[in-house]
Amino acid sequence: MAGNSFGKLFTLTTYGESHGTALGGVIDGCPAGIDVDIEAIQQELDRRRPGQSSIVTQRKEPDTVKFHSGIFEGKTTGTSIGFVIENTNQKSHDYSHIRDSYRPSHADYTYDKKYGIRDYRGGGRSSARETACRVVAGALAKQMLKGIEISAYVSGVGTMKLNKPHTALDLTQIESNIVRCPDQAMAKDMEAYIKEVRSKGDTVGGIVSCVIKNVPIGLGEPVFDKLHAELGKAMLSINAVKGFEYGSGFEGSTMYGSDHNDAFNNDGTTKTNFSGGIQGGISNGMDIYFNVAFKPVATLIQKYETIDKEGNTVEMQGKGRHDPCVVPRAVPIVEAMAALVLADYFLLNKLSKL
Amino acid sequence: MAGNSFGKLFTLTTYGESHGTALGGVIDGCPAGIDVDIEAIQQELDRRRPGQSSIVTQRKEPDTVKFHSGIFEGKTTGTSIGFVIENTNQKSHDYSHIRDSYRPSHADYTYDKKYGIRDYRGGGRSSARETACRVVAGALAKQMLKGIEISAYVSGVGTMKLNKPHTALDLTQIESNIVRCPDQAMAKDMEAYIKEVRSKGDTVGGIVSCVIKNVPIGLGEPVFDKLHAELGKAMLSINAVKGFEYGSGFEGSTMYGSDHNDAFNNDGTTKTNFSGGIQGGISNGMDIYFNVAFKPVATLIQKYETIDKEGNTVEMQGKGRHDPCVVPRAVPIVEAMAALVLADYFLLNKLSKL
Amino acid sequence: MAGNSFGKLFTLTTYGESHGTALGGVIDGCPAGIDVDIEAIQQELDRRRPGQSSIVTQRKEPDTVKFHSGIFEGKTTGTSIGFVIENTNQKSHDYSHIRDSYRPSHADYTYDKKYGIRDYRGGGRSSARETACRVVAGALAKQMLKGIEISAYVSGVGTMKLNKPHTALDLTQIESNIVRCPDQAMAKDMEAYIKEVRSKGDTVGGIVSCVIKNVPIGLGEPVFDKLHAELGKAMLSINAVKGFEYGSGFEGSTMYGSDHNDAFNNDGTTKTNFSGGIQGGISNGMDIYFNVAFKPVATLIQKYETIDKEGNTVEMQGKGRHDPCVVPRAVPIVEAMAALVLADYFLLNKLSKL
Amino acid sequence: MAGNSFGKLFTLTTYGESHGTALGGVIDGCPAGIDVDIEAIQQELDRRRPGQSSIVTQRKEPDTVKFHSGIFEGKTTGTSIGFVIENTNQKSHDYSHIRDSYRPSHADYTYDKKYGIRDYRGGGRSSARETACRVVAGALAKQMLKGIEISAYVSGVGTMKLNKPHTALDLTQIESNIVRCPDQAMAKDMEAYIKEVRSKGDTVGGIVSCVIKNVPIGLGEPVFDKLHAELGKAMLSINAVKGFEYGSGFEGSTMYGSDHNDAFNNDGTTKTNFSGGIQGGISNGMDIYFNVAFKPVATLIQKYETIDKEGNTVEMQGKGRHDPCVVPRAVPIVEAMAALVLADYFLLNKLSKL
Repeated sequence: MAGNSFGKLFTLTTYGESHGTALGGVIDGCPAGIDVDIEAIQQELDRRRPGQSSIVTQRKEPDTVKFHSGIFEGKTTGTSIGFVIENTNQKSHDYSHIRDSYRPSHADYTYDKKYGIRDYRGGGRSSARETACRVVAGALAKQMLKGIEISAYVSGVGTMKLNKPHTALDLTQIESNIVRCPDQAMAKDMEAYIKEVRSKGDTVGGIVSCVIKNVPIGLGEPVFDKLHAELGKAMLSINAVKGFEYGSGFEGSTMYGSDHNDAFNNDGTTKTNFSGGIQGGISNGMDIYFNVAFKPVATLIQKYETIDKEGNTVEMQGKGRHDPCVVPRAVPIVEAMAALVLADYFLLNKLSKL
Repeated sequence: MAGNSFGKLFTLTTYGESHGTALGGVIDGCPAGIDVDIEAIQQELDRRRPGQSSIVTQRKEPDTVKFHSGIFEGKTTGTSIGFVIENTNQKSHDYSHIRDSYRPSHADYTYDKKYGIRDYRGGGRSSARETACRVVAGALAKQMLKGIEISAYVSGVGTMKLNKPHTALDLTQIESNIVRCPDQAMAKDMEAYIKEVRSKGDTVGGIVSCVIKNVPIGLGEPVFDKLHAELGKAMLSINAVKGFEYGSGFEGSTMYGSDHNDAFNNDGTTKTNFSGGIQGGISNGMDIYFNVAFKPVATLIQKYETIDKEGNTVEMQGKGRHDPCVVPRAVPIVEAMAALVLADYFLLNKLSKL
Repeated sequence: MAGNSFGKLFTLTTYGESHGTALGGVIDGCPAGIDVDIEAIQQELDRRRPGQSSIVTQRKEPDTVKFHSGIFEGKTTGTSIGFVIENTNQKSHDYSHIRDSYRPSHADYTYDKKYGIRDYRGGGRSSARETACRVVAGALAKQMLKGIEISAYVSGVGTMKLNKPHTALDLTQIESNIVRCPDQAMAKDMEAYIKEVRSKGDTVGGIVSCVIKNVPIGLGEPVFDKLHAELGKAMLSINAVKGFEYGSGFEGSTMYGSDHNDAFNNDGTTKTNFSGGIQGGISNGMDIYFNVAFKPVATLIQKYETIDKEGNTVEMQGKGRHDPCVVPRAVPIVEAMAALVLADYFLLNKLSKL
Repeated sequence: MAGNSFGKLFTLTTYGESHGTALGGVIDGCPAGIDVDIEAIQQELDRRRPGQSSIVTQRKEPDTVKFHSGIFEGKTTGTSIGFVIENTNQKSHDYSHIRDSYRPSHADYTYDKKYGIRDYRGGGRSSARETACRVVAGALAKQMLKGIEISAYVSGVGTMKLNKPHTALDLTQIESNIVRCPDQAMAKDMEAYIKEVRSKGDTVGGIVSCVIKNVPIGLGEPVFDKLHAELGKAMLSINAVKGFEYGSGFEGSTMYGSDHNDAFNNDGTTKTNFSGGIQGGISNGMDIYFNVAFKPVATLIQKYETIDKEGNTVEMQGKGRHDPCVVPRAVPIVEAMAALVLADYFLLNKLSKL
């Protein structure tokens, strides 16, 4: 209810502040008997980890996950799965500069107004650090969804856009570069661009695209819980996301019905896929694909003016080890959220018929 | 759970098929003591009604709502509010042409695969007719949210785009034309365009934009239930929606942080509003604004080939009284969903402090 | 959230005041393809109906249910099922005597204090009339649970107790008398007793027992959602219920473990059944059985003193057509709630393994 | 959904097996700004702790709780509160005797049938050890509910019953003896009785009663979520509970309405309190009181025959450090569950009016 849970049947509840003792969560509703590969879960966390490459924040945080329950002799038992990621990088920082001031386009102001109190250390609960827990649960969801392939990648950094449909890309190349763009030439350009932005103490936005293959037909619920509606919510819940579109997306709004309709083949597949693998909110077995827009990170390594709690103008100086562009590290988060949605709807779909 | 409910605290549960006896729903969690203006609710329904103008479907359906409970002596009582909209336009149609065939880019195929059975009359539960119930509940939510102004309008029809920020528009003009575009010149062009498209038996997509003014600070929950995430889900759950963006949206992904950050004024308002009135998932009191992309309606008044249940190619002929472009009628639906989200988060926010 | 919904997956949401236009509800989450026997549903309603015999309230209310959606060609479609029961017995009563006064041991006082407003006509939402909607949904749940036999019966009226285990009773005799007690001699005594109580304008409490046979093994969830915990909640939510016990119940608290443990037979059944068919919150395939205690109806056909809204002492006079003892009419309600719980847990159990 | 969460607004989600690495949980929905006394929480845990006295299990387990998040500078922040209790007593037991066999009246058989797998070490998830997490959350709930007094006590051990209404007891004496019975003479007898039962390797059931004073008027929701229904579910969800009754309870079912009705005083209080502080499911400000029946612990320190997974008869020998009677340690668990229900309904009630 208070926003720290996701999913109806395959449910993740998380906790943890950026600079608190630990992050953690509970996964409830995972069916019994799933083989768990804990190393593979840690690998997904490593894809999200700070310090993994030269274009992301250089903060050092190993992000090691420990499971406390719900897994026995290598398999899920059907009971709730608790896990913890300790925060090992809690230096005794001096937070006085942000304790009483509001950084622009952060959550400082709104948390303070809403709760009357805020853990100001490193953004507290509003820090994107919480997404580590999503990656853990998403990685487990992927293991439950054996056969379904979820591949996210960077398709835009600033004005630099990969204008190719996913069908024209070699998705096996995503992890071959630190940007996580499957087009190697474009990846090189994006990397240079991000470095240039960083050198100015600035940041830039970007786009993560995602393709999901081998989705069973029937995932999605009518009316309010359409599959793409939940995917949209999942993506929009990731820090810094400003937009979501699937299938033909915003471009589709400019088209004629006669061009946009996906004619059937005789086996039930469709000749085109403007629908993005979802019709009437329910998967039709074609590839699901969507784009997620991320704004530029709000923390700049620059001097700027802002206000304190009393409304006085104060000068602040961004410092530290921040991402100049979030999209390379957002790739595993997008995949994790997609996996959580699919796991949930996969289970829901078991209830559509007796 | 099965997709027919929306909202956590201010909850709408709906039922009803396009050509069944009636649509209806239950609104639960509306606080006691709200003055209810039933006529105003009916007026919202009338804005969504078929046959209201020359550019929408000419189906005749009065869409009269009757309340059964939860309102007493003009006020809500705090108990559940049941309502019914009878389907008066159920002719004894011949549905044989769609009973065993799947119309392209409709939900026929996916519902059949998911449930093994489908009410094929006029799209059944997948028909946008269900949105009438959303408009009823949204209109009540608006009455609870006295002072908050929610204004949706058409900002795009096909490639025709109203490239103006909402701050440059006169929102009082929205209802002054049948397109529901506040720019009168543009509205005229859009109307002509829609008529032309219809004359070819074709359809076209469009964009609905929405602005919400006077939002209290503090609406929105951390992590998974950010205010814009729920708004996004709400909009994406509307039939034919393919994309959602708020604040700077997809354009924001191309910007630098130094341009995108919204500097504070001393009173806590911001000089710019790329954040779209939401920071860290929580409203900051500035205008909330967002865009919703609608695909072209799938039903064309044309001949086409498709498949039947056995996978045989069959010829079909779209006929009847369909919308050439949904966006004029989608305007009140977008507003209703926005109102439902705000009502829910308004109540949730009462729980943030004791 | 606001108390008008029951069930997690097989969900009933209801509305309706005692003397409003209509009662109704929405059943969501019923799987597709269930054969629906609407006549059988009406028959269950008839078992709950006022005026059905000489020992219940003589109010005339046909309680005819109409389904609006979710059932097509005799089967459930998997979409939400809306239904309505019109209130045909709304006379233009004079309610002035209860409008401003609080009847003792009713909900008048608490509703007024909680909501600041109350539909005072006939108890409004707090009237047991709402249980009609439960019976509708429970009857549908029974049809989904083909093979599971749920039999409730009256085992106590006032101090008159049927001190026999359910295994010593002929449950086919329950409907053979108007008390709904399977022991014919006892039923006769109870009937006489109820009539005597009524003749004094008084009321008396009673006990409904329930046995559920052929329950699949595995229904129930760990920790908070144990099967008997949900059964308990379901029963305690019925108007006038003061207690619930299952299996050995309160008597079990006086026993030694060496007497109470249920030894296994080699086929997994148990030699005794003090567990009441549930171990660790999960059904073990043995008969589930429980008792539900009902207090005496609060409305007496007598003169009494009470207070008005201002706290002044006022005299009131109970009148009208009230039940002298609720248990005969409570039997189908207990069965309905048991069916709703089982339907829900039956679906939940489909998720325990992949 | 899968049974490891409790509460709608003040929500506890727990995890952990008896002999796993750790137990833990997440409390979500606790409002911001509550002063947290962590020592007082630990004290509640100590009341539940094994080894605390000579009449409970002599297992050594310090049960120290560590909070990971959601509390900052001594106050709740409104974000989710994660906590962990490490299992320090995990010896490398030999579990071969229960791995393949089913202990009578335990959850071994049902878990295995439901999930196809089971953490057999010490009962796994079905162990009452999980209630430690409930006590943590309940203790925090108590701190939120300042002013409301929740007092549980032992009122029955086997056939030994404290036949006094709570109004005739000195509740300050509850903690003055190891049985937690406020009547010192009775406590002494109960203690001797429990020791005698233990000396035979047997166990015995008992009753915990609970009184809640200073409850605000208005807690409880209509229809399905009546306050006592949720209290009943909460209590029935505790391991070994077989029954629940509130106010007049089962005894009330034998009474006449003319004796049972609670006449009003002019200030809205009532002269009697057969209603148990709840009318129409909503608190009326009078004392809430209820009884909870616990069965005898199933683990006997005796030899007995049972079956293995293949249905073969096997001989087992109960051993170890088990409670001869759970009620003394159940007292803080009953209080914790009551506090969780009240916290939830306290928040819900903030939504009844705007």
